[in-house]
Amino acid sequence: MSDMNVAVVCGGVGAARLLRGFVGFVPPEQLTAIANVGDDMVLHGLHISPDLDTIVYTLADAVSAERGWGLEGETWQAMETIARYSETVSRNSDAADSGWDLDWFSLGDRDLGTHLFRTQAILGGAKLDEVTQQIVATWGLDLRLLPVTNDRLRTMVDTADHGEISFQEYFVGHQHSVPVSGVRFDGAEQATPAPGVVDALEGADRIVIAPSNPAVSIDPVLAVPGVRAILERRRDDVVVVSPIVGGKALKGPADRLLVELGREASVVGVAEWYADVVGTVVIDNVDADHAPAIEALGLKAVVTNTIMSTPDITRSLAHTTLTR
Amino acid sequence: MSDMNVAVVCGGVGAARLLRGFVGFVPPEQLTAIANVGDDMVLHGLHISPDLDTIVYTLADAVSAERGWGLEGETWQAMETIARYSETVSRNSDAADSGWDLDWFSLGDRDLGTHLFRTQAILGGAKLDEVTQQIVATWGLDLRLLPVTNDRLRTMVDTADHGEISFQEYFVGHQHSVPVSGVRFDGAEQATPAPGVVDALEGADRIVIAPSNPAVSIDPVLAVPGVRAILERRRDDVVVVSPIVGGKALKGPADRLLVELGREASVVGVAEWYADVVGTVVIDNVDADHAPAIEALGLKAVVTNTIMSTPDITRSLAHTTLTR
Repeated sequence: MSDMNVAVVCGGVGAARLLRGFVGFVPPEQLTAIANVGDDMVLHGLHISPDLDTIVYTLADAVSAERGWGLEGETWQAMETIARYSETVSRNSDAADSGWDLDWFSLGDRDLGTHLFRTQAILGGAKLDEVTQQIVATWGLDLRLLPVTNDRLRTMVDTADHGEISFQEYFVGHQHSVPVSGVRFDGAEQATPAPGVVDALEGADRIVIAPSNPAVSIDPVLAVPGVRAILERRRDDVVVVSPIVGGKALKGPADRLLVELGREASVVGVAEWYADVVGTVVIDNVDADHAPAIEALGLKAVVTNTIMSTPDITRSLAHTTLTR
Repeated sequence: MSDMNVAVVCGGVGAARLLRGFVGFVPPEQLTAIANVGDDMVLHGLHISPDLDTIVYTLADAVSAERGWGLEGETWQAMETIARYSETVSRNSDAADSGWDLDWFSLGDRDLGTHLFRTQAILGGAKLDEVTQQIVATWGLDLRLLPVTNDRLRTMVDTADHGEISFQEYFVGHQHSVPVSGVRFDGAEQATPAPGVVDALEGADRIVIAPSNPAVSIDPVLAVPGVRAILERRRDDVVVVSPIVGGKALKGPADRLLVELGREASVVGVAEWYADVVGTVVIDNVDADHAPAIEALGLKAVVTNTIMSTPDITRSLAHTTLTR
């Protein structure tokens, strides 16, 4: 096992949890996490990379257990100041009309330090992968974490009610409660994979797609030119852990999005979604009945416990993705 | 007194204190503070306006008494995170060489809320004067506070040791301890006065120049096209409170800068500096002996207590600038 090279295609929370299963079990130099940056945004002038930060904070045991994102022991002084300004602005309808929207995205004081650091470094000419390397080192992690690209890539969500909006406006601003008719990855065509991404995918003995949202967390990674083609070619070595368990997303709107984008909210829908790029689908015990339908698509179905509620289950799930 | 229109040309700390003397005594609709923006900078992607914030925080009784800038009751969580990143970067000499400089400028968590608000509003298309109006209102102030311009204006300081550097690099980064050979106001020629600035200066019965640093706090205000010309023409109605008392600056490097830029560090040096734009110089009792030298320059010298150590002295000094 210890001589396998592993690449993990990552969104945020689900990917971070699965990565915990790999760490210690796959040697650091043989494990590469390739992360989504389609959720990134510039807010208040700050470059925010939610999925990268969720992975780092989770692996550093610093993530807020309650929220699943951001830092434990956080304070909210900056947001309280912003909220005061927001009140003033909302009393002034002219100002409220003209894009002063302020406090819909929570930024903790400690977490702000990360965004301030990243932004300053990028303004100083550093690339996102270089900044990420410094952040990973600062949190004491021995992890090769690569943004899929250093270029600007933005997941845009088409909604009937609000037109095309950014992922964060959809996810946080509207709490993913509005129907979606399409997803687009702005900038993807012009993006190039960050240094090391292609080599990690080509050199991996196994490529694991984390149990992240297929439509808005994994698809933006695959949309970077070259990435999907590698997975298509290496399909037999690619395994996905289903983010759908018993017809529901464990977290977030993956189930609704699958339906809204023309699939069913089931492990079969997941298998269909990934059929071109994946050889194996790992599904939860509760979905064992669906294994034949997945096999009928020409994919292998592996049934195990996929709900990472304890370190043992998490490690076992990670192990399963490599051995089955 | 209450029917006089007053315009105060402001730097940061000294100006904020003098403004406290005017508030309540000159009706708000007759008082306009016109503030320096040459100290402004973009740091970590944030638009920071130190003089505007010092004025607001001081008049709101929220300024840190100990520091003279920033907020009382501040926390420093974001800076602590940044310091951790800074340590990582400084262990990596390559990174340290390439402009990752991080934690030289202290940003409190509460204060960060102001910078985040200002930056978001400006990125959303608001002008600096509009943002400032919202900030003033949020802090419960009834004050007409105008940035001298909405355009980019940057005080640049020529140093023998470090070449030309920004004001904040000089003032904070090098703690104003390096010799200065010249000062330049980048962007001034292209700047236009913010709405209301020209009207306030033209309509004022008295224009007061605050006891701020002549070279780096007041000169950038005068450098905005049109402003100096109004003061030259209205010279008889312009009064400056000397920032030099007994040959020393009360705060900061005004005394050294005067000498380095070819004047003497005295109230006479101040009078010479402002001779074209000022009719009256208010000097401290300790400098009474210099009054004849000031009068010899064709300026009126008014001798009083200029050290604003109590509200009464502050109010009396403000009163003196209008009546003498």
